Amino acid sequence: MSTASGPGRRRAVVVGTGLIGGSVGMALRSQGWHVSGIDLDPAAAAEARAAGAVDATGDDPDAELVVVATPLGPTPSAVRHALAGHAHPGLVVTDVAAVKAGVTAAVGHPRFVGGHPMAGSEQVGVAGAHADLFVGATWVLTPTQHTDPDAFAAVRAMVTSLGADVVALSPEQHDALVAVVSHVPHLTAATLMNLAGSMAEQHAALLRLAAGGFRDMTRVAAGDPHIWPDVCVANAPAIVEVLDRLVAGLQAMRDRVVHSDRAGILADLGRAAGARRALPVGGEPPEQLAEVRVPVPDRPGVLAQITTLAGDLGLNVFDLEIAHSTEGDRGVLVLVVDASGADTLQHALTERGYQASLQVIA
Amino acid sequence: MSTASGPGRRRAVVVGTGLIGGSVGMALRSQGWHVSGIDLDPAAAAEARAAGAVDATGDDPDAELVVVATPLGPTPSAVRHALAGHAHPGLVVTDVAAVKAGVTAAVGHPRFVGGHPMAGSEQVGVAGAHADLFVGATWVLTPTQHTDPDAFAAVRAMVTSLGADVVALSPEQHDALVAVVSHVPHLTAATLMNLAGSMAEQHAALLRLAAGGFRDMTRVAAGDPHIWPDVCVANAPAIVEVLDRLVAGLQAMRDRVVHSDRAGILADLGRAAGARRALPVGGEPPEQLAEVRVPVPDRPGVLAQITTLAGDLGLNVFDLEIAHSTEGDRGVLVLVVDASGADTLQHALTERGYQASLQVIA
Repeated sequence: MSTASGPGRRRAVVVGTGLIGGSVGMALRSQGWHVSGIDLDPAAAAEARAAGAVDATGDDPDAELVVVATPLGPTPSAVRHALAGHAHPGLVVTDVAAVKAGVTAAVGHPRFVGGHPMAGSEQVGVAGAHADLFVGATWVLTPTQHTDPDAFAAVRAMVTSLGADVVALSPEQHDALVAVVSHVPHLTAATLMNLAGSMAEQHAALLRLAAGGFRDMTRVAAGDPHIWPDVCVANAPAIVEVLDRLVAGLQAMRDRVVHSDRAGILADLGRAAGARRALPVGGEPPEQLAEVRVPVPDRPGVLAQITTLAGDLGLNVFDLEIAHSTEGDRGVLVLVVDASGADTLQHALTERGYQASLQVIA
Repeated sequence: MSTASGPGRRRAVVVGTGLIGGSVGMALRSQGWHVSGIDLDPAAAAEARAAGAVDATGDDPDAELVVVATPLGPTPSAVRHALAGHAHPGLVVTDVAAVKAGVTAAVGHPRFVGGHPMAGSEQVGVAGAHADLFVGATWVLTPTQHTDPDAFAAVRAMVTSLGADVVALSPEQHDALVAVVSHVPHLTAATLMNLAGSMAEQHAALLRLAAGGFRDMTRVAAGDPHIWPDVCVANAPAIVEVLDRLVAGLQAMRDRVVHSDRAGILADLGRAAGARRALPVGGEPPEQLAEVRVPVPDRPGVLAQITTLAGDLGLNVFDLEIAHSTEGDRGVLVLVVDASGADTLQHALTERGYQASLQVIA
């Protein structure tokens, strides 16, 4: 099934050629990769090829990179299958599933690096795919203590080449945070939409009164519902905790309304306005970069600890290099971060027993 | 303070020259009106004049139209002041406050027609104003049994000339519906934003994970918080009722998540997706119009009953004329509506004892 390809092109396979997989394929191709695409639905794979998302349909045994972009449910088995089915010595496998702890634990392989691009749209399928989907987007990677540092660096470099900003987090941390910024907001948008929809059955004027604010708030609810049962079940503990906090917040707001607590209402909404206006905009270039060099023992867990520490501090790691020592058991991890946060990172590393040095770069 | 103006220009006053008042001024001027602007803050009025939102600052005793665009709190007194301070025989006064029952009851004057344009932005002040702000927007008018039909027709014609679609609702109906599509969504967006903000204090990465969906959902929370204490207090009963329904909906969702009820989750989210996709887009022109003619006794309450009936059925009234009988106590109300809803309106009118005739027009 493979088409002709130039010698020396790096080879990748995308498993699941929908919106995300198709966009990954397009973006990798624009970076010079030869991309093969697999989909359970042969028509979807053919459509992806016709759309220019992949060079060829079917597997590629010589691939050095496999991106699993299936729905959440089949992700662990697709990842295991990819790890077993490719012999390239530098093989790395990553995925894009929206919940990470379960997948990461189920796979538990040093050459697998879990990922989650925080990008998408209400569209479904390769028809909505484009090569720029990830430019400026945050792409979470979830290394664990078992992750091979070189596998992490390879996936990290690939993601960065697609224009995304990498944030490394532990799988558990990722799942707790996306419950707040993605899963519960989605469930809330759907609940609001259903509430309005049920009232509109009696009052047809209601939806004509829905202006920009309501449309903005419910936009995500228009998305494909089929991904959500798996996401909700896989991330149930975090979702329930955040839902409970949201309900408590709404009940506190209700109390203020009932008691005509104008000062309390103003304080709540003023705090929210300040936080919303301060929301970072993706892809903002920092004013100055700094290089943080950390001598580390040359073993996997250290990389996960340090990169997820940077992620948890909210620091964008613009570049990362692992300089292996020729003497065997030591290396130097070089992180390039926004200079304004480098002190914080250095301090946190020192607290954890590392001797990090810091140098501001042009 | 008045500048030179051509003879015969219709004269209006805008009270409160912020985003909405400034936009009304710009839109009226583009329709040929001479507009004067009053603001408690003289600098704001001067800024509005400099921005081209008004021809002159200060009051205009010859105005036939006064648009009160102050915050909700001072609206009733500003409306009463406008009614008392202008001697034009055709004087009409309208307002733009976000809650209508209190204002309408407090004023209770046949030449006052309550209004609420469902348009705006996160911006504050005349700097965000523009003449096209209302094009395609829904603008609710809230006639009551005391409203003079000619005053209603005059305000309606003015609003339509600004490009907005008029929906007539009773003040109480308006307040119940905006609680669903505006007030509670806003409080929910603020609560979500505050929840994320408080968690971000411990996990700085959280806000970097906030992608388009979260940004959309919380966008309204960036708006000026100062309008909300008055709105929440004025519309407390409706807001509390809707908040309670939202919390019940979220708790039902929580139960489904806890019990891994995949089918229930899919059904909820599928229903929401369908409703969101079906949300009407403002300003859609109907395929065909129909004229509904209703012989009516020539007294105020009838107009409010019929126009709010059309509004409550979700019908956009594209044109409205009141043909007064020369014989005194009878007239004909002519409504132009989307032909696809004209039957429903005719049926509803018949049920209420009117003899409405219907004719599809080109």
